[in-house]
Amino acid sequence: MLEYAAPLRDMSFVIEEVIGCDRLAVLEGCEEVSADLVDAVLEEAGKFASGVLAPLNRVGDVEGCRLEGDVVHTPEGWRDAYAAFCEAGWCSLAMNPEHGGQGLPKLIATAVSEMWDSANMAFGLCPLLTNGAIEAIEQHGDENLQARYLEKLIAGEWTGTMNLTEPQAGSDLSAVRTRAEPRGDHYLITGQKIFITYGEHDLTENIIHLVLARLPDAPEGTRGISLFAVPKFLVNDDGSLGERNDLRCVSIEHKLGIHGSPTAVMSYGDNGGAVGYLVGEENRGLMHMFTMMNAARHAVGREGVAVGEAAYQHALKHARERIQGQAPGAAERSAIVEHPDVKRMLMTMKSQVEATRALSYVCALAYDVAERHADPDARARAARRGDLLTPIVKAWSTEVGQEVASLGVQVHGGMGFVEETGAAQYYRDARITTIYEGTTGIQAGDLVGRKTLRDGGAAVRELLADMRESLVALAAAGTGGKAVHDAVSAGVDRLERVVDWLLAGAADPRLGAAAAVNYLMLAGTVCGGWMMAEATRVALAAGDADPFHAAKLASARFYCAQILPRAGALEQAIVDGSEVVASLDTALL
Amino acid sequence: MLEYAAPLRDMSFVIEEVIGCDRLAVLEGCEEVSADLVDAVLEEAGKFASGVLAPLNRVGDVEGCRLEGDVVHTPEGWRDAYAAFCEAGWCSLAMNPEHGGQGLPKLIATAVSEMWDSANMAFGLCPLLTNGAIEAIEQHGDENLQARYLEKLIAGEWTGTMNLTEPQAGSDLSAVRTRAEPRGDHYLITGQKIFITYGEHDLTENIIHLVLARLPDAPEGTRGISLFAVPKFLVNDDGSLGERNDLRCVSIEHKLGIHGSPTAVMSYGDNGGAVGYLVGEENRGLMHMFTMMNAARHAVGREGVAVGEAAYQHALKHARERIQGQAPGAAERSAIVEHPDVKRMLMTMKSQVEATRALSYVCALAYDVAERHADPDARARAARRGDLLTPIVKAWSTEVGQEVASLGVQVHGGMGFVEETGAAQYYRDARITTIYEGTTGIQAGDLVGRKTLRDGGAAVRELLADMRESLVALAAAGTGGKAVHDAVSAGVDRLERVVDWLLAGAADPRLGAAAAVNYLMLAGTVCGGWMMAEATRVALAAGDADPFHAAKLASARFYCAQILPRAGALEQAIVDGSEVVASLDTALL
Repeated sequence: MLEYAAPLRDMSFVIEEVIGCDRLAVLEGCEEVSADLVDAVLEEAGKFASGVLAPLNRVGDVEGCRLEGDVVHTPEGWRDAYAAFCEAGWCSLAMNPEHGGQGLPKLIATAVSEMWDSANMAFGLCPLLTNGAIEAIEQHGDENLQARYLEKLIAGEWTGTMNLTEPQAGSDLSAVRTRAEPRGDHYLITGQKIFITYGEHDLTENIIHLVLARLPDAPEGTRGISLFAVPKFLVNDDGSLGERNDLRCVSIEHKLGIHGSPTAVMSYGDNGGAVGYLVGEENRGLMHMFTMMNAARHAVGREGVAVGEAAYQHALKHARERIQGQAPGAAERSAIVEHPDVKRMLMTMKSQVEATRALSYVCALAYDVAERHADPDARARAARRGDLLTPIVKAWSTEVGQEVASLGVQVHGGMGFVEETGAAQYYRDARITTIYEGTTGIQAGDLVGRKTLRDGGAAVRELLADMRESLVALAAAGTGGKAVHDAVSAGVDRLERVVDWLLAGAADPRLGAAAAVNYLMLAGTVCGGWMMAEATRVALAAGDADPFHAAKLASARFYCAQILPRAGALEQAIVDGSEVVASLDTALL
Repeated sequence: MLEYAAPLRDMSFVIEEVIGCDRLAVLEGCEEVSADLVDAVLEEAGKFASGVLAPLNRVGDVEGCRLEGDVVHTPEGWRDAYAAFCEAGWCSLAMNPEHGGQGLPKLIATAVSEMWDSANMAFGLCPLLTNGAIEAIEQHGDENLQARYLEKLIAGEWTGTMNLTEPQAGSDLSAVRTRAEPRGDHYLITGQKIFITYGEHDLTENIIHLVLARLPDAPEGTRGISLFAVPKFLVNDDGSLGERNDLRCVSIEHKLGIHGSPTAVMSYGDNGGAVGYLVGEENRGLMHMFTMMNAARHAVGREGVAVGEAAYQHALKHARERIQGQAPGAAERSAIVEHPDVKRMLMTMKSQVEATRALSYVCALAYDVAERHADPDARARAARRGDLLTPIVKAWSTEVGQEVASLGVQVHGGMGFVEETGAAQYYRDARITTIYEGTTGIQAGDLVGRKTLRDGGAAVRELLADMRESLVALAAAGTGGKAVHDAVSAGVDRLERVVDWLLAGAADPRLGAAAAVNYLMLAGTVCGGWMMAEATRVALAAGDADPFHAAKLASARFYCAQILPRAGALEQAIVDGSEVVASLDTALL
């Protein structure tokens, strides 16, 4: 069994000490939020994650899902766990109270969902996708759709999916071919979709598929794609289930990881067309999808944090128990945690998990402020920040998650390569996170194009200014933070120089594209440093009473000493090395 | 099926153009070596790898091995492939002609074996381990052992294994508990060994296990371990097989990768003791094992090159075929290979595979010179070089191999996560290479302690001097190599500064241990740059006639622009950051 204990202290540190509950409590509908409430929610969630979901993680991995006919059976125990999950109200935590949600801020929901993903990432994907469907229908669905679907989805009685990919249309959705023919109040959908997470399963009686398709007269490319809600079972006016819709799961994938999560090939309209309902406006489906994609991308970034946390806990436990060799200066054989290189690996894991967690929470706060703050300027500013941070959280956290999961295997030595140990599962599960919901390359393109160049660097400069403000506050907190201050300050300088370089070269799109992933990793690494500066400031102010704060100082020092130097390599590769990439003749590959 | 075409041109480039066959032909027993001979051997090996081994790679992964009773069944087709492998003489390529070997240099055997590992790493492990057993018996076995075992092992009629690890003795072999009781001309061995590659299988009628064990009166620790040859079937004086020995495979591991290679738990002496024969001297087993370990470590480094090459070929093929989006400046939808970030990923793969390959061959040449050169000084110098490069080739090439295999998945996007595509198998198979035969941390400790500090940096300075000589030669080759020259020169400076720092801090073993992996990766990255400088020199001299040379120049420029900057980050993490690691209180983890 893979064990997991929610890192409640680090979660509450970021939410209550670094961010501060007061920043939530000023938001509309969050007036009741307090440290006590946060602690209570996190503690309950932690119990559920450890007690119910973690024990099923390896079961899901070993057993996987089975397709029989067109029914997908989830692994042993998953139906009960899902029912308990809904029963406990975890589905509706951050959902709109108008449709039965509990209305908690996304920041708290992010910490809670991180626990699901650490305990059992394959399980966590089910509510993750449902959330996306809920957002799409809430933001773009008409009243009828909202009335018919939202309450059931929010309660978790039904689940939702996102149907984007087709064999010829992956990162490039302009190539979508699935068709939608208008038929009065609905449309008939025909086509095949692949890589549909929880596209079919036995956890609930109905599934609402959000499907991208083209109308007959739609223009070519991305401006001719519309979004449809296509239920597995049609829903009668009284809310009861009606006929089975003309859609089915054709096969499920045999994957490297997340075996407990069925990845379906879905066929729509084998018998004339699946009934679907337009969500939002015709031909604006991709834009509507993007509004839900920010949340989904943030959620995948959170998976990177989560699988990293789980891998770290697992490796640390092993390193404290495993006796091997003598550490320098030790009189007897040592637990391997005492060996300097094992310390280095574990701290590389810990400090980066903490850095990615903090940034993920800061980004979630931006979403909350953008949605709920009374001041429109504050909302707009937060929206810019959320938009800017989303691709960084998504791609950097998942790249880091994979590095961390790989180190988790390494700390285990030969035992890490044996599946029974469990370290390998984290490594396999983590591997999808840099791919789905837009690869690291796609996120990086978004960061360069839409998030940096389009506004002439305004949002990034706002971020850089906030970082420098944090550094001023850190400097004021005393000399104990000087090493962190100076290292992060150098990182911020690097990031700023690279932003200038990008803006100066904006006329040549090849250059920005060649630099994009290095730029994203630089931005992530420096944002991580910023989070470390914030943690250092808080920990210095807190004093010595709680040893947890000493651990935060140690993480920050380590991050600055061992991780932040990568920023220099990235800057050099961008500024001096992008032209080599851009001008490469592919015949030479 | 996973396809593979041996990179014959790059292999011959390194052997014939960078190294030069004349450096082999001056060695004893290598007088016949010429470019024609090398080309002929490589071409034949390439056919075998592509035609026989590659088609079995996925079969082995999917089917795995089965233990029934104490018999291990290898996957469908493997017995025939192994028989054909022996029949074609591939087992004996670099073996001693006195015992039926063909006496080719290790340099050529390295290129040939790289092909086995690219085509089917799980298969390649069988001869890899047999080679280790052969070396141990050749170097330390008495005449009787040599006469009884060598010919069969060299012909591949029997295979060999290395039995080091026990549950409590992994990286720390001082904890070995397996016992050996003297009984006249032999010993009785009792104990359990784990992680024994090809410890049991159905490919041959006999298996010779090389086993570390303790004599009853042996001193504690590493100086009390002896090495024994323990055959599965005893061998009669006439060479025929006698009784089954008292040893058996208890179970085989369920692993992340290399499923076709059985990893056995071996039990010795369940019925009184397995008959074993001392190899070399009593209590010097670990030293004897180390003589074969250099070769085995180099071979694992070669696996890193090989799996990287296979992953690169696989990803490049996909990237040329997959149409998605429009590359900057393109008029129509593009093959993804045209997208700058995909170019960056593919070139990150290609340039590092080429860098690790070249260093692996240069190290193999050092082994050959150390063994066969007429001049004792040349032999001694080459031995120092081989000893120095071995941990670098082992650990750096495998860390790079994993990065490359992971990028191979990434280039495939969602399809990379689906097992049928094959990219995931390379990713899984590669994961063991930084662990077995000594983890990256163990190699790094060896590099710092035995290979850098023990001789006061003499061997490293010899290497640095050779690098500078290469740079002088490159500068003399014209201005076309200036960017590469300057980047590599900066890297060599960094490595030298770090060596100085290590020597200056030698009194504090915590510091060197904390810096070790960063130092090893720095040394590898800079050695890779050195290889790129050499390739650039040769390619510039060759002119434009062969487009292959243009590709080498492109690889080198890319490596210097995108990979070598990492050296700066590593230097900073070592010099400014090691104290933070060394002084970390593990209670803060």
